[in-house]
Amino acid sequence: MTRPARRRRRDRGGGIPQPPWRRLVNAYAPIEVLSADQVESIHRASLRILEEIGMEFLSDEALDVLAAAGADVDRETRRVRLDRGLVEGAIARAPAEFTLHARNPARDVTLGGTHLAFCPVGSPPNVSDLDRGRRPGSFADFCDLVRLAQSLQTLHFFGGYPVEPADLPVATRHLDCHRAFITLTDRVWHVYSLSRQRIDDGIAMAAIARGIDREALAASPGLITVVNTNSPLRFDGPMSEGVMAMARAGQAVVVTPFTLAGAMSPVTLAGALAQQNAEALAGIALAQIARPGAPVVYGGFTSNVDMKSGAPAFGTPEYAKAALAGGQLARRYRLPYRSSNANAANAVDAQAAYESAMSLWAAVMGHANMVLHAAGWLEGGLVASFEKMVIDADMLGMMAAFLEPLEVTDETLALEAIREVGPGGHFFGAAHTLARYETAFHAPMVSDWRNFETWEEAGAQTATRRANGIWKRLLAEFEPPPIDPAVVEALDDFVARRKRDEGGRTA
Amino acid sequence: MTRPARRRRRDRGGGIPQPPWRRLVNAYAPIEVLSADQVESIHRASLRILEEIGMEFLSDEALDVLAAAGADVDRETRRVRLDRGLVEGAIARAPAEFTLHARNPARDVTLGGTHLAFCPVGSPPNVSDLDRGRRPGSFADFCDLVRLAQSLQTLHFFGGYPVEPADLPVATRHLDCHRAFITLTDRVWHVYSLSRQRIDDGIAMAAIARGIDREALAASPGLITVVNTNSPLRFDGPMSEGVMAMARAGQAVVVTPFTLAGAMSPVTLAGALAQQNAEALAGIALAQIARPGAPVVYGGFTSNVDMKSGAPAFGTPEYAKAALAGGQLARRYRLPYRSSNANAANAVDAQAAYESAMSLWAAVMGHANMVLHAAGWLEGGLVASFEKMVIDADMLGMMAAFLEPLEVTDETLALEAIREVGPGGHFFGAAHTLARYETAFHAPMVSDWRNFETWEEAGAQTATRRANGIWKRLLAEFEPPPIDPAVVEALDDFVARRKRDEGGRTA
Repeated sequence: MTRPARRRRRDRGGGIPQPPWRRLVNAYAPIEVLSADQVESIHRASLRILEEIGMEFLSDEALDVLAAAGADVDRETRRVRLDRGLVEGAIARAPAEFTLHARNPARDVTLGGTHLAFCPVGSPPNVSDLDRGRRPGSFADFCDLVRLAQSLQTLHFFGGYPVEPADLPVATRHLDCHRAFITLTDRVWHVYSLSRQRIDDGIAMAAIARGIDREALAASPGLITVVNTNSPLRFDGPMSEGVMAMARAGQAVVVTPFTLAGAMSPVTLAGALAQQNAEALAGIALAQIARPGAPVVYGGFTSNVDMKSGAPAFGTPEYAKAALAGGQLARRYRLPYRSSNANAANAVDAQAAYESAMSLWAAVMGHANMVLHAAGWLEGGLVASFEKMVIDADMLGMMAAFLEPLEVTDETLALEAIREVGPGGHFFGAAHTLARYETAFHAPMVSDWRNFETWEEAGAQTATRRANGIWKRLLAEFEPPPIDPAVVEALDDFVARRKRDEGGRTA
Repeated sequence: MTRPARRRRRDRGGGIPQPPWRRLVNAYAPIEVLSADQVESIHRASLRILEEIGMEFLSDEALDVLAAAGADVDRETRRVRLDRGLVEGAIARAPAEFTLHARNPARDVTLGGTHLAFCPVGSPPNVSDLDRGRRPGSFADFCDLVRLAQSLQTLHFFGGYPVEPADLPVATRHLDCHRAFITLTDRVWHVYSLSRQRIDDGIAMAAIARGIDREALAASPGLITVVNTNSPLRFDGPMSEGVMAMARAGQAVVVTPFTLAGAMSPVTLAGALAQQNAEALAGIALAQIARPGAPVVYGGFTSNVDMKSGAPAFGTPEYAKAALAGGQLARRYRLPYRSSNANAANAVDAQAAYESAMSLWAAVMGHANMVLHAAGWLEGGLVASFEKMVIDADMLGMMAAFLEPLEVTDETLALEAIREVGPGGHFFGAAHTLARYETAFHAPMVSDWRNFETWEEAGAQTATRRANGIWKRLLAEFEPPPIDPAVVEALDDFVARRKRDEGGRTA
């Protein structure tokens, strides 16, 4: 058949096929691994954990806030016991759905219900690509990964730093990273809950970026933070305070217990899920006590360790079941749900892909609303990989196409085309085909469907090698999204002033 | 933590971890991509195709049989129009579920309902591995792939030749292949519908292998054939006659239209599915007319072509939707369902894995009862890959573990363990962990979860390279399953006699 016109899709990045950025809705019924009774058993067990065993909060302010709300607080051990009425009352105040506002309103995303959004990998210490190998992350890598994620139309917003820029001073690193998020992308971005000051800076910069004040920002949240509990049953100081500060500012908080079954949680999935649920509910309750109605997300991250070595494993059958069960629990409370696209491979190979596929199917069919680490994660989160980011983005594109409804109409049933072609014919030249072939099927970036001989003559490149070529082309052709120069100037002033403050304090 | 005892699972193949061979049941609700109304629309469209457009049958005997059953047969064009009463009446006679009997009853498999069985790749012309590269298949490769599949405990039976042995004479090739299936494995095996004689030989050899006569074999089927229509709407002579011969002998027939959307079927999925359904129902009706109640399987294989090149694509979003829809159609008729683990990659790389994962999730969540090509398929079916067979077997093992129900009991909820460990503790040494860690999690063959440094020092092997080591170890340690020497002698006599006959006829 003849080659179709090339520019049928928005060809971002020099002809690399990508459907345009778009919001996703998941109309499939979720896969349920738990019966309704089992969901209730896990729910009841987690309430007993909070009531009878309790959680440690290492922040004095969190202890005050929780005590004032009626929790049983032991100041000496920092152990907080929360009765079920307190927990259930607090959780009930959380919105089932909320919208995160980007500086470009065309990139706003809604979390909750049947909405689905993908985020690049968050916060690995290392970075890797085929040319330069594995190395600690730098700010140059941070910016390149931000540019790459902005170029990939299947990624909706930033749920973390795509790599930790270890070459920047710790005290002011966040100022440079926030500025890079705002100027290199037009999407929603992330602040760390590592100190009150960092969150305040993030809020100030987000307000500048959108040309609004803090009250308007609180009414139209545009920042998100992801908080991990120190499982089992402990909330550290900065995380506790970050939850409260973000909630009070009306910005979104994702509470994700890191419950590795057999290490930080029971070896049985039911027990790990009960503990995950207890810890997530405790964090969400803290946010709702700090500000009723604050936007929150229930995070699930239960996986298992390799019982031979104790090493964390991801994308395992147990991981998939836990991710699906986590969705059932989040829906039990009408809370938006966060899952991940995780794997434990050391190279961008078949293992990286099949473990990711297990994680991704479980995230999507578990009705995750936010999939963190959806592109670029390698080595159980220790590395951000440029090639993996491209391959994952292609897997996300396939998932997005999979979510498009199958249309059954007289025209798509094509009885007349079948009659016209008849037994033994072919459909290549049929009018029904010619009218539709340019947009009939999803066009991937990475997959190579040429025959073996053609592929071999062209250099026999693996998918990972092709992904290497794609990220380089996308970066070479990157253009930052338009931004008002006055906004950049105001940001630069803010960053300069804050760096002077920090310099004065730490010099 | 300390290293657990190594021999906790049945270590087949020198310590390569594999759970034992076992039958699988899929208790998850299937994913439905079609509404009930849409299923009925496709059903009605396919009945209209059979009634108004008809199918070509290139076998005179099939024309006779169909005419006798009441079909409208045009002898000149070989076009057969089947009215809906005829089709629905015939289909209704097919069993919803049946058991295939192996020479070792411990390897019997049931198809239909919630049963799930995996088969190695069927019938590629070429074979490939990392050491010897890509080459036409030989009988030595055939035997090695049969041995490898027999060594892999996630594979249930043979739904085709794992590679075509091009170095054997065509007329007697099947005799050697059947003998290899019987002596190198103890599982159910496959005969081609390429001629009446081959099927008769298969039936005779299956009866010898099980020490039973043809009547007993008909009452306890042990052979299966997979028939593809020549889409669109054509059944060739050998395939039509194979369907009837197998059905009359009480052996199982899988009817799988090869409906590539945009090439052999409409470019719209609904149209491709309507045509798939029409062709599958026609073949199944022929089997039921030949012998009411004969064991049959509804095969779905709808995928799409690359509209840039016309090349077939597999494991695409469209493929996944079609595989799920195919399951809905098969269940509409209470027929066992066959799907595949397909991909179009040229190397055992990330593409091979993520396309396979799309196919496999769709097969499993579409409630396929038989997944053909579940291990070893590469290049859209042109190649059987030794490394891919091992990697796929690991993916199948993950799926099998994913199907194990999540247990929620007081003991698995582990409240006492959580209480004992408390905030900030760890579960490695907890009694609850120690009592369960040896069997708590699925142990993969291929996945490597060591940290990067250890993995790099050990040679930085990709999953594909590790799979290369695994198949060599499995072959080196292969021991054929026990068989009565008298059976082998009888088989050898039969093969020798039949080869003399064929020699006499073709020399």
